[in-house]
Amino acid sequence: MKQTSLCYIENDGKYLMMLRNKKADDENSGKWIGVGGKFCEGESPEDCVKREVSEETGIVLDNWHYRGIVTFVSNVYETEHMHLFTAKGTADSLPDCIEGELAWVEKEKVLSLPLWEGDKIFLDLIADEAMPFFSLKLVYESDELIEAILNGKQDILGKKK
Amino acid sequence: MKQTSLCYIENDGKYLMMLRNKKADDENSGKWIGVGGKFCEGESPEDCVKREVSEETGIVLDNWHYRGIVTFVSNVYETEHMHLFTAKGTADSLPDCIEGELAWVEKEKVLSLPLWEGDKIFLDLIADEAMPFFSLKLVYESDELIEAILNGKQDILGKKK
Repeated sequence: MKQTSLCYIENDGKYLMMLRNKKADDENSGKWIGVGGKFCEGESPEDCVKREVSEETGIVLDNWHYRGIVTFVSNVYETEHMHLFTAKGTADSLPDCIEGELAWVEKEKVLSLPLWEGDKIFLDLIADEAMPFFSLKLVYESDELIEAILNGKQDILGKKK
Repeated sequence: MKQTSLCYIENDGKYLMMLRNKKADDENSGKWIGVGGKFCEGESPEDCVKREVSEETGIVLDNWHYRGIVTFVSNVYETEHMHLFTAKGTADSLPDCIEGELAWVEKEKVLSLPLWEGDKIFLDLIADEAMPFFSLKLVYESDELIEAILNGKQDILGKKK
């Protein structure tokens, strides 16, 4: 099982998004996601998100909001637990990043980008700043989302067999 | 890194506690903790806590409160991320459990039991039912708690070098 942190950094109505297009073996290849990556030994979710955001964007997070945890289950990849953050932040310029291409994208246009289907569910959840901390389980068969359970109870898709 | 869920089940002013005294290689040996255990592949935090509570106590959780995540760092054990739940629940009788000895303990007496030092911090946090979801990082040298950081920022012990 893999543990990651991911952050959606907001500035002036835009999210800092990354098109994952630089690593051949990247399971997110061709898709846009926020900024983040895998936990190192000894890291808390906050340690990981601060390190990853700094490494990938040069932005030093000093304020953030820990929004939820997403459990990704797949018939292709190992299970991933992703700790989801939002933050306000900006950068004078965006650095080259070895993971992908960074861009500020208007929040209302983010859902039109090539995204994992389940990302649209948690992007809706984080858009509501009053939403309490949530736990979302997403089950994929290859690229198809077949189940989405919120807080261990609520079946969002209604596709479950 | 290890992922676990742990639940403090409350009934009539008591917590269901377990004295870990049955497994030779148990890092919690001799200490009292709540009920829980390690994630299996494909499990969300809720999947894990429901399965572990059912296996160890016979109690079927249908309502719970996901309270926080605790990152344990140690110079002896691998890093552990523990997902912390509280729930209301009861059982006509307590089963024999291969992990330890179960007992209902008055909440105000729990802090007098042999506990990990850092457990007292999160037991205080969960005692306040209005406390928002929290992330607590606890750093141990053997049995000594040397650092406790709340929400990636607040140094609770003030011992950090």
